[in-house]
Amino acid sequence: MYANCKNYRTIWVNRNDNKIISVIDQRYLPHKFVIEDLRTVDDVFVAIKDMLVRGAGLIGAAAGYGMYIAALEAPKDNNFDEFILKSAEKLNSARPTAVNLSWAIDKQLKAIKKGSSIEEKIKIAFDTANEIADSDALSCKKIGEHGSKIIEEISKKKNGKTVNILTHCNAGWLAFVDYGTALSPVYHAFSKGIDVHVWVDETRPRNQGARLTAWELEQQNIPHTVISDNVGGHLMQHGLVDLVIVGSDRTTYTGDVANKIGTYLKALAAFDNNVPFYVALPSSTIDWEIEDGINQIPIEQRGEEEVKYIQGLHEGEIKKVLLTPEKSHATNYGFDVTPARLVTGLIFERGICKANKKSILEMFNERKK
Amino acid sequence: MYANCKNYRTIWVNRNDNKIISVIDQRYLPHKFVIEDLRTVDDVFVAIKDMLVRGAGLIGAAAGYGMYIAALEAPKDNNFDEFILKSAEKLNSARPTAVNLSWAIDKQLKAIKKGSSIEEKIKIAFDTANEIADSDALSCKKIGEHGSKIIEEISKKKNGKTVNILTHCNAGWLAFVDYGTALSPVYHAFSKGIDVHVWVDETRPRNQGARLTAWELEQQNIPHTVISDNVGGHLMQHGLVDLVIVGSDRTTYTGDVANKIGTYLKALAAFDNNVPFYVALPSSTIDWEIEDGINQIPIEQRGEEEVKYIQGLHEGEIKKVLLTPEKSHATNYGFDVTPARLVTGLIFERGICKANKKSILEMFNERKK
Repeated sequence: MYANCKNYRTIWVNRNDNKIISVIDQRYLPHKFVIEDLRTVDDVFVAIKDMLVRGAGLIGAAAGYGMYIAALEAPKDNNFDEFILKSAEKLNSARPTAVNLSWAIDKQLKAIKKGSSIEEKIKIAFDTANEIADSDALSCKKIGEHGSKIIEEISKKKNGKTVNILTHCNAGWLAFVDYGTALSPVYHAFSKGIDVHVWVDETRPRNQGARLTAWELEQQNIPHTVISDNVGGHLMQHGLVDLVIVGSDRTTYTGDVANKIGTYLKALAAFDNNVPFYVALPSSTIDWEIEDGINQIPIEQRGEEEVKYIQGLHEGEIKKVLLTPEKSHATNYGFDVTPARLVTGLIFERGICKANKKSILEMFNERKK
Repeated sequence: MYANCKNYRTIWVNRNDNKIISVIDQRYLPHKFVIEDLRTVDDVFVAIKDMLVRGAGLIGAAAGYGMYIAALEAPKDNNFDEFILKSAEKLNSARPTAVNLSWAIDKQLKAIKKGSSIEEKIKIAFDTANEIADSDALSCKKIGEHGSKIIEEISKKKNGKTVNILTHCNAGWLAFVDYGTALSPVYHAFSKGIDVHVWVDETRPRNQGARLTAWELEQQNIPHTVISDNVGGHLMQHGLVDLVIVGSDRTTYTGDVANKIGTYLKALAAFDNNVPFYVALPSSTIDWEIEDGINQIPIEQRGEEEVKYIQGLHEGEIKKVLLTPEKSHATNYGFDVTPARLVTGLIFERGICKANKKSILEMFNERKK
């Protein structure tokens, strides 16, 4: 997608030197656009751990390239395999709860094993990393194609008047390799000339909406308005939202959706006002083991400092300010679960289905036992 | 209530010189506790306009004392009455939408008129100002007594285990002369030894929860936890909220409640999880003209800079930081309307009633035509 009028992915192989992996450092967005070069396993570890890169798809891709860098960095002798395994372990520990991280590393380990020489192993690692990244981008592109049909239909019903879409958090291209999930349908519809406008929930405490989603949309020239997380209900009561699309961090095969904290409140408001509420997600986020999302999906609690402090731009510099009384405590749940009954539909790379066991199993036929 | 271990009201007559009115300057809370002395009508005008004082009850009381100061400041000759009228006009323009402002000024104008000498007029203005302040404090105290019974009942049902109360925005003593509305029942219950804990919605964009409610509770030593506005639904899903109490800026006689933006989302979550949702309010906030809150109560839109920027403490100084891309726009609705069907009950100074026309008219018998 566009950043500073140039086409980017969130992670790529340096054009002049394919031993270097470049990423956009998302910690400074929207205030500063910084590209970092990753040359060692340590660099990749820090990039994931310190959240230069974040978001399910992007973490997976970064881990994939990290294993390629490990193969480059490894001693070209009998210690090669040991270095690869240690690197895998290290990268895996960067964000232990990220499902895509271990998935990409395991995929690389299996692939690299097949090489009969060190040179071949490096080549396999490179190809596999590219494949992981390409496949993530392709899934997101397809989600966009399917999802844009919903937007197109609403546009037709409104005789071409602006379609107002509300989104929560950032499930745009910055969270993946390209396109994103919740925003991909918006990008696709916009590129087809459909008149869209996005309400961007700022998404406290980490403000991924105000910082990342707003920046993404601004860079693509898509009309958008930032709102505090409190506003969506009022907008829906007054007919100012035609559609809600959010992403998902984990979805039960029964249709319950774990996503950024606050998603449930928007789903309630959408339901109360007959606004369609869609979740866009790659099929990799389905949890085939869990039936009851609210009681079974573990919810990450993060540090209270993310609530008590906030970061922003002051006189050209990024600064952190204290928002609460020094002595007050804060609690910081990262996600909540939206029950399937509030979800209109799920937008997968395969197509759209209802948020219930029957529809999901029909779409993923191979899972039927 | 307590501030720095001393008992305060939000506005008071200086003990050493009853020609000076003192207020807590709320702009710097929770980071700095500043008291300002108001000596002229201009001082009072600026205090209301620049929001040194805010909140329905406190604005009314400040206007009352402002008219007393006008009587003191007025020339003691034929021009006295003209100065009083001009001062009334000036004060009225400080926050034109605040209902309590014009109500207090009108009350003073009528009262002052009855004095037969300038000296007597000054005395009347002083007494009336005190009466407005005392009556506000008394109403809030009574709301606390009635509301605490709800908390006490829950405490009994839980066999004395902590009662978890969620509140949104600041409807505490800082918004009134003393005690507050939504927090008054909490203070009363706490003083009776009931084990309470308050979930404080930070209440973006102006963060009255994180700044003012958290500070109030911390100063009274009441256990509390600040949360982002996104969290309440998740807490309710997991049984971590026993009761929601919020304030009201305007309530229709049919029970629809206009309150700080985001209140509606918490009401939806409370309803979805069978959590009682109460609104605490002085009867002066009832609008006897309007039937349909959602379609008839005008909702104030404020400047986008309140969403795009936020203020906090950085190295001992209060600073404002930019949160969004510079070019992104923001929209800032100040209030939303919670339909009566989601409200469990209304806590007035007279007692508690249901949020419907019949119950409200039964409580305000004199309004029945």
